This record gives sequence, structure tokens and C-alpha cells, in this order.
Amino acid sequence: MRAKAAAALLAPVSRGEKDRVLLAMAEALLARSAGILAANAEDVAAARAAGTPGAMVDRLTLTEARLAGMADGLRQVATLDDPVGEVVRGRVLPNGMELRQVRVPLGVVGIIYEARPNVTVDAAGLCLKSGNAVLLRGSASAVRSNTALVEVLRDVAAAGGLPADVVQLVPGLDHDSVKHLMRLRGLVDVLIPRGGAGLIRAVVEESTVPVIETGVGNCHVYVDVDADLDQALAITVNAKTHRVSVCNAAETLLVHRGVAQRFLPRVLAALHDAGVAVHGDEAVCAVDPRAVPATDDDWAAEYLSLDMAVRVVDSLDDAVAHIRRWGSGHTEAIVTRSLGASRRFITSCDSAAVMVNASTRFTDGERFGMGAEIGISTQKLHARGPMGLPELTSTTWVGVGDGHLVS
Amino acid sequence: MRAKAAAALLAPVSRGEKDRVLLAMAEALLARSAGILAANAEDVAAARAAGTPGAMVDRLTLTEARLAGMADGLRQVATLDDPVGEVVRGRVLPNGMELRQVRVPLGVVGIIYEARPNVTVDAAGLCLKSGNAVLLRGSASAVRSNTALVEVLRDVAAAGGLPADVVQLVPGLDHDSVKHLMRLRGLVDVLIPRGGAGLIRAVVEESTVPVIETGVGNCHVYVDVDADLDQALAITVNAKTHRVSVCNAAETLLVHRGVAQRFLPRVLAALHDAGVAVHGDEAVCAVDPRAVPATDDDWAAEYLSLDMAVRVVDSLDDAVAHIRRWGSGHTEAIVTRSLGASRRFITSCDSAAVMVNASTRFTDGERFGMGAEIGISTQKLHARGPMGLPELTSTTWVGVGDGHLVS
Repeated sequence: MRAKAAAALLAPVSRGEKDRVLLAMAEALLARSAGILAANAEDVAAARAAGTPGAMVDRLTLTEARLAGMADGLRQVATLDDPVGEVVRGRVLPNGMELRQVRVPLGVVGIIYEARPNVTVDAAGLCLKSGNAVLLRGSASAVRSNTALVEVLRDVAAAGGLPADVVQLVPGLDHDSVKHLMRLRGLVDVLIPRGGAGLIRAVVEESTVPVIETGVGNCHVYVDVDADLDQALAITVNAKTHRVSVCNAAETLLVHRGVAQRFLPRVLAALHDAGVAVHGDEAVCAVDPRAVPATDDDWAAEYLSLDMAVRVVDSLDDAVAHIRRWGSGHTEAIVTRSLGASRRFITSCDSAAVMVNASTRFTDGERFGMGAEIGISTQKLHARGPMGLPELTSTTWVGVGDGHLVS
Repeated sequence: MRAKAAAALLAPVSRGEKDRVLLAMAEALLARSAGILAANAEDVAAARAAGTPGAMVDRLTLTEARLAGMADGLRQVATLDDPVGEVVRGRVLPNGMELRQVRVPLGVVGIIYEARPNVTVDAAGLCLKSGNAVLLRGSASAVRSNTALVEVLRDVAAAGGLPADVVQLVPGLDHDSVKHLMRLRGLVDVLIPRGGAGLIRAVVEESTVPVIETGVGNCHVYVDVDADLDQALAITVNAKTHRVSVCNAAETLLVHRGVAQRFLPRVLAALHDAGVAVHGDEAVCAVDPRAVPATDDDWAAEYLSLDMAVRVVDSLDDAVAHIRRWGSGHTEAIVTRSLGASRRFITSCDSAAVMVNASTRFTDGERFGMGAEIGISTQKLHARGPMGLPELTSTTWVGVGDGHLVS
């Protein structure tokens, strides 16, 4: 309820005021780094004592450099256009009434996320700029870090004349507090879970608050019969290996039977050279003794690792059917010189993004020129693909008349 | 699953083909009216036998004229622009990649609705034009009419080369079939309940499929201290009495204390003359002996009848606070000559539509120039306000490169 009240006060605040607060937040993170790092050190020590794997401890750990990165993120958000008030459409009706559809904040945005404390600052910055109050529900392992970060952000908001409650950490560390958050329909306007497939599924199943699904990416590269095979090789390796732990990395390679004989030996050698374990269908295993036979689990997998499923398909339509059957609707790439094939692939896939002769890794708010993103939506409602500031808004219709009546 | 398969086939169909099918559907409704009217007569007889109130029997009843109205509706949808393929945004990225965001169908749309059989035809037409397969779940009382109508629509779709399964009636008449529909996440892309507040609440609570809330309208008219009182009077009477059973009718009148003494006697007399029962606060009841004291139930009510709650407020901010506390987020109107007051009201209300010096009754897809609408959304995600064809679409990002890699 405090968030809802704060959101009402934040909605009409001008861009200038919001940007001043964002810049002051960036400075305060650096000025008060000692306290933040001390709180983080406690989280890190507790995680080590609990036997947390090294990679997760690393994601949890803050340094002066990482704090500087968060501060830079806030400064970058300050440079982005304010989506609030943007006129999306407008016209004068035949009766003389002016009608326009304008962007307004969503209201209260809840973010449920896992280890990284940088999400705390990124999400708060994006929500503030788009005029929304934010309820942050990070993981228990980062609670001291998140508490310290949120305290700084709240202090700066209050000093800048905004309600401190525009940024709040959801109290409670057990699942009950998440459950409670998911039931606050009417108070919370949208929930955005950021994390693994399990977290996202749980929120989607249990929430009565509208949810925006983010991030699960079982992305495909399809090499068409008309592909430039040099491009196909480079795109496959880039999409698979440039960064394996992210949702826009490719997980499955589909190769048209017409080029399989020429392309498979090259691409499989390149993947093995890059350290990729190949899970192949019969045709692939026949060519490559190092390939492991693929099962349905492989077609469905978001590996997030140096693994790739590889399959030979008889046609573009078969590739599309495979993608529609097994994909997560994130990003699919086709490599082809055929305009007709690219058109058919674009209109037949049912995904947030389709790349033609480009790596799946391009699906990203910053690479799309949107500035920072709060996540990549894989659902069809409201926002699909990278979510920047406009995706954190709703709209209102404004009609201005002169005593206009309906007759 | 049949709807999902049909949706995949419908998505790439051109506007010309879809329009030809829509026009053929319109003709077939008239050509096969005898069978439809006979089926409807059975529904009507059963409703009468069950003691259904006359107004509901009337809504259920089809005539040649009403069938002609449905056919006209389909013809009108055929004249509307196809939203599929519309480029929403586009640019060339600094690396030379072309990037564009294009509208695509949602996929499978489920509509859950009450008595009126015309919704069957309207919804099918709008979904077909926007490239979506539709699952129709009408009320048990209209099942014979809906079955006859859907049979005609499916026959025409199939004759036109489209899968008949682009239009389907959900089998089963009990609540279990609705429950099942609400759990088909992954098969059904969105559910749109059209009906009373109880139906909508049940769907929102139980559905794992994303829902678009429609229709509940507790709309307000606020008469500012700077109002033109003649306009205020006309707008209040129009918003309340032009048609009382619709969601954009006004239910509560808020009057600034500074004009209450001059305005209340006039508006209360006019409302009484129009047959409106007034539920007033103390100030109103002091002026009008016929007014009934209002309770919290009145401030919360969507009367849909010749009743109106009337309250005196101390300021524009108090009016906004009342609206935010009690409103349903549908449509609010302010009557004022003050530009500042109108600006403040627009940015402070949190509703799908705000009218300045105009009746709340204007919130309507046809009046907004969108053509037919599938409903009026009162939620903030995806679509807010009247939902026309573009609101029945999602988007896909398309990136076209020439071997572009992420580095």
C-alpha cells in the first residue's frame, strides 16, 4: 500500500527531477561504498560457509568496480528518453474532440530475482525513470547487500523530494513472502520474475498479479539449403559459444539435408574445436563419432553450457515445425541467401525475435538501441523481446472536448 | 491443439484472403438464416420455460434484422486495416543490421461470454481478421444458437481455403469446461472474459492463461470549481442516462464544494426528472430530500441502472483521491475551463480513459475511430481501453544482417 501511494506521487514527476535523483543515486553508491561492501562481505562469508559453489559466490560478490558499473548504469538510464507522457497515437474525431493515447507508468512493479545484487540497482533505476514504484524481492543469500543498496537508494529519493517508498525491499526471506507478493492483485500491477525456468514457472502458476515471463531461451540456428556456408559456420559458432550462460545463446542447430553433407563436417569440427559437446540425431552421429545421440530432452534443453543439439531437417517447413514444437519462443536465426526462404521463416516462426543472417545473440535491449533492459519477455502479451523503458508503461486515452455529448 | 495448428496456418494468410472469407461469412449468415433462427427459437423456448427474465430473453433472441446486423459487422471488419505485418518501429543499427518490430497474431484467443449470440460472430470476425484462431465459450442458454452460428462460420472458412478450426465452440456446458480452458497455458495465448464482474473475477483468479480484464466500469464525472455549469449539467445527464446498462455510463458524480450551492439543485432536479435515484453524501441529502444517504457500497457500485451516487468534494485532489479509492479504472470525466485543472486531473487519475469536458460514454472503439472492438480493457498490461484489431496482436522483432556476429 505504501508502494501504491508512492507510485501515485511519482507518476506526475518530471523527467528532470527523476534524472537528478538517478544521478544522485549513482554518486551515493560510490560515496557510501564502504558500508555496501561491508554488508556484501557478510553475504559472501555466509554463502562460503554454506558451501555455495564458486561461480555463485562470484555473482554475489561486489567490488568497487562493480559498484562503479551499477552507478554507470544509473547514469545511462538518466540519458534515456522518459517514456511517460509520450503520445502514442492521436487524432481529432469527426465531432471535433481531440483524442490521444499517452504513456503512463504501470504503477507498482514487483521484481523477483536471484543472486546478483546489481539487479537491485538496475531495476530500481529503470522503474524510477518510467515513473513506477518498485518492490524488490531478491534472494535470501543477498539480503544484506540488497538491504544496504536499497537504503542508499531510498535515502537519495527522499533527499530529492520523492517518497522513499518508490523503492522497497520486500521483507521476509522464505517463500511465504513471495507467495504474498504474488497475491497482491490490485496493489501490484505487474510481477517480473528474473531467474531460472523453475522460478518463472512457479510465479506464472501461482500469481494472480499479471506476470511478464522473461528469459528462458531455447534458441535455434537454421542453416537453409541456400545458405552461405561460411556465414552459417561463423553465426553458429558465435551464437553457441560467444557467451554460453545467457538466454540468447543458441542451443540447437538445424541443418537442411541439401547442405548437410558439405556443412556438417565443417561445423561439427568447429564446434568441437570450441569445446562444444554435440548431441546429434542419426545423420549427425553417422558423420561425427564424437557426437552423443540426442533425445527429446536435448531438443527441449536450454543448456546454458558448451552443449549443442544438432539435427538434419528435410525442409524449411520441417525446421519451423521443430522450432514450434521444442522452442521457447525467444530467438531463432536463419542463414540463407534466399529472400523467399527468409520471408517464409520470419512469418512462420512464433518467437520474440527472428534473425536473418545474424547471430541469435543480438536479441538484447542495448544492442537493439533501447538502452538498458529489465529483461527479455518471451510472452506475447504486453511486451515481447527486450523490455526497455516504454515496456514498463501502460497507456491512457485522453479525450478533450467542449461539452461533447454522445447522441 | 487443433486451434493452435489452425492459428499457425492462419498467421501468414493475406488480408485479401481474410476479407473474402469475412464477406462470405456475412452472406452465409443471411443465406442460412432459417436454420440459425430455428436453433435460436429452441434456446428462447428453453429460456422462457426456465423462467428467464424478459430482458435476458430479449438479449438472447435473434431476428432477421439482428442477423443482418451481425453480417454488417463482419463487412465492417473487412474494411478495417489488417494489423498483421504492420511495422511498429524500425531502424538500421550502427553495425548495418536492419531491425524492425512487426505485428503478428497472438495465436489462440479464448473468449468467455454471456447471453448475446452476436458476440459469437463479432469475436470470430475480429479474431479472424487479426490472424488469430478463436475458442468461443458462450453461455449454456445460447448453445443451440452459437452452435448454428459457428457451423456456418466454419463451413465458410473451410470453403475459403482456411482451416475450419480457426473458429471453434468450446464443448461442454458446465463450469468444468471453462476451468479446463483457463488451464491451457501454452495452447491458449490469451483469455478475454466478457460479462459481469463475477465472471471476470473468477477467470482472473483461476486462470493460468494470461487474461485481459474487460468491462467493469465505475465511471465518475467531476465538476470542478471552474466548470461551465451548463456543460457540467448536460455531460452529467448524458453520461448517466444515455444508456445505463453499459460500462462507460457514469455511476458517481463528484462536485467541487465551491460550486455545490449553485450546481447541486440544478443537477439533482435534472437527474430526478430523468428518473435517476440519487444516493448522496450529507451535503447532497441536505439539499435534496429525495436523495438516499450513500454508503461505501454506493461509492463502489457499478449500478448499470438509473441510480447515481453524488458527493461533494473539497478539491480536485479530493476528487482524484475518491476516484483512485473507489473507481474501477475505466473512464473519468472532468468538467472545467481551467487548463491547469484538466492537466492535473489527466495525470493524477489512473484510468483507461480521461475525458475533459466530454461524456464518459465516448470511451468506445467505434467512437474512437478504431472500428469494432472486442471489449474495453480496464487492466494496464497489453491493452488499456477499447480493444480493436491491433490490440489482438503481439509483435516480433526481425533483424536482417549479412553474417553479423556479436563481438
